[in-house]
Amino acid sequence: MIYEGQTVVEIGELEALARTTRHFRQVPSTIVGPGDDAAVIAVSDSRFVVTTDSMVEGRDFLQDYSSGFDVGYKAASTNLADVAAMGANPVALVVTLMVTQNTKISWLEDFAKGLQSALDELSPSAAIVGGDLALADQIVISVTAHGDLQGRKPILRSGANVSDELAVAGTLGKASCGLALLRHPDKTLAASYPELVSVQLRPTPPIHLAVSAANATAMLDISDSLAMDANRLAKASGVCLRIDSSKLAGYQAVLEQAYQSILSRGETSDSPESWVLYGGEDHGFLATFPKGTAPVGFRVIGEVTKGSGVYLDERLLEGRGWDSISS
Amino acid sequence: MIYEGQTVVEIGELEALARTTRHFRQVPSTIVGPGDDAAVIAVSDSRFVVTTDSMVEGRDFLQDYSSGFDVGYKAASTNLADVAAMGANPVALVVTLMVTQNTKISWLEDFAKGLQSALDELSPSAAIVGGDLALADQIVISVTAHGDLQGRKPILRSGANVSDELAVAGTLGKASCGLALLRHPDKTLAASYPELVSVQLRPTPPIHLAVSAANATAMLDISDSLAMDANRLAKASGVCLRIDSSKLAGYQAVLEQAYQSILSRGETSDSPESWVLYGGEDHGFLATFPKGTAPVGFRVIGEVTKGSGVYLDERLLEGRGWDSISS
Repeated sequence: MIYEGQTVVEIGELEALARTTRHFRQVPSTIVGPGDDAAVIAVSDSRFVVTTDSMVEGRDFLQDYSSGFDVGYKAASTNLADVAAMGANPVALVVTLMVTQNTKISWLEDFAKGLQSALDELSPSAAIVGGDLALADQIVISVTAHGDLQGRKPILRSGANVSDELAVAGTLGKASCGLALLRHPDKTLAASYPELVSVQLRPTPPIHLAVSAANATAMLDISDSLAMDANRLAKASGVCLRIDSSKLAGYQAVLEQAYQSILSRGETSDSPESWVLYGGEDHGFLATFPKGTAPVGFRVIGEVTKGSGVYLDERLLEGRGWDSISS
Repeated sequence: MIYEGQTVVEIGELEALARTTRHFRQVPSTIVGPGDDAAVIAVSDSRFVVTTDSMVEGRDFLQDYSSGFDVGYKAASTNLADVAAMGANPVALVVTLMVTQNTKISWLEDFAKGLQSALDELSPSAAIVGGDLALADQIVISVTAHGDLQGRKPILRSGANVSDELAVAGTLGKASCGLALLRHPDKTLAASYPELVSVQLRPTPPIHLAVSAANATAMLDISDSLAMDANRLAKASGVCLRIDSSKLAGYQAVLEQAYQSILSRGETSDSPESWVLYGGEDHGFLATFPKGTAPVGFRVIGEVTKGSGVYLDERLLEGRGWDSISS
């Protein structure tokens, strides 16, 4: 997408902020919103949940692939997923945005619309309540998201019990497959698989499923990969996770056609199995539940046993995936 | 300060995080600390205060002047000031840090020590409860800080009443004078005025004074300049602020010797009056109180009258100061 018109620097900070915040919708839990030294947020009890995550141009996104809208949408949705993975209902986000000397005001407005769209679609109870706009050599976004536990216990990674069932909500492998399509030299390929590309650019974690999974014994957001995040859960809980490969077949099947399209154009590619096991960025949820109690929307893929590590059938599954420093 | 040894990239994310977090001290209000998808924080009532601010290498700090410790200290203290300016007691900070390919692990550890030192000295009830470490082309820090109103009303910018007294806590102009000393071609000059330079590099807002100023009708943190922030308070409250220049004489007097030292070395300089009125970054507090009730630690510098704008004696005081986009 080409952005034209004035830059953020030309238009000035005050006007740029005004053009940004007009896209934000307020919610009842915001007692004091943007404009003072700080915001004041209401929660149901005397606790709040807080998480932060960042995106850097050139590492976490490329302007060749991602519009301002996409970047805003992903920055919000990935942080909403971390709040929801604690079993908390998202209520408030603050956003730090560094733009460059050349960033257009139209990019900034598109970014703001993307932030708000993610909230509207995934978590309408939440609002952007503050932020900071500054200049840097590349675009950098840092979002801090807050949640309300609504009287419930937080769902940690460490609570899985032997004989629990292991379940997933959301997609697996689509974001990685989408990235492979975007990176393919044949630029028409990505256009043939809009849904897969969309999961990479604008992930839609099922926030409501995680927030309402009050009976989960452990839960986390699958940000790096099923293999890596399952290992984290197993280690934190001191248990072994056994995944049944037949339960992953459906996730692989929906990637098969795109995989064949990549191969038929003479490129090598990771396999659908590899995308499902080792691909990150879908931001679904991995959770454990007492046997037979996984709620609607969660798909059982395995079980919790005594021991340590993660097994796919009889094979030890290594914790490989995305590393933000060395990748 | 020269940093040697391995880079953050060489040492890897996990080890870098371990070396960083070992400098952080936990506090009782942290129910769930770093290591899960999100942290869980306790507050006294069903509200929390949240603010965010960032620092970019080359714009907000230079490695020539600032050590990693200084950058960490300032990143924490400026955000603590914003929380305290709402009348809230700081409880939790999350920190996003972007380092470069060349950033040394020793810089990162020094940064972490600076963060914790600011909490220890200015707000021991607060802790670093989470964060994010990533790579970028320059060092970028984004801090989000949280506070507990402890049952009190938030103190907004908009609450000043006609006939209130206007008062300041903390220093005025020292940070700007310190910056002028650091920028002076004679590099021995800064070493002669360590306290002024220190306010620029490691501001020490009197957090406890703001948190305990429960009777303030309006308050904000003087981040950009007395003139600019007074104009913000006046506008938000719909009042006129009248500052008595004789009450500012003491703030100017302590800058006089440094000013003469700069002039005597043949450089032009802003005046002490200009530093006090238009210099930012001291991060003191500007507040209004019912007449005669400003607490110990606040110095009365003027009064609130009907009308609009800010006056220094009979002179209209323009809202000039720091602008993060165009400066």
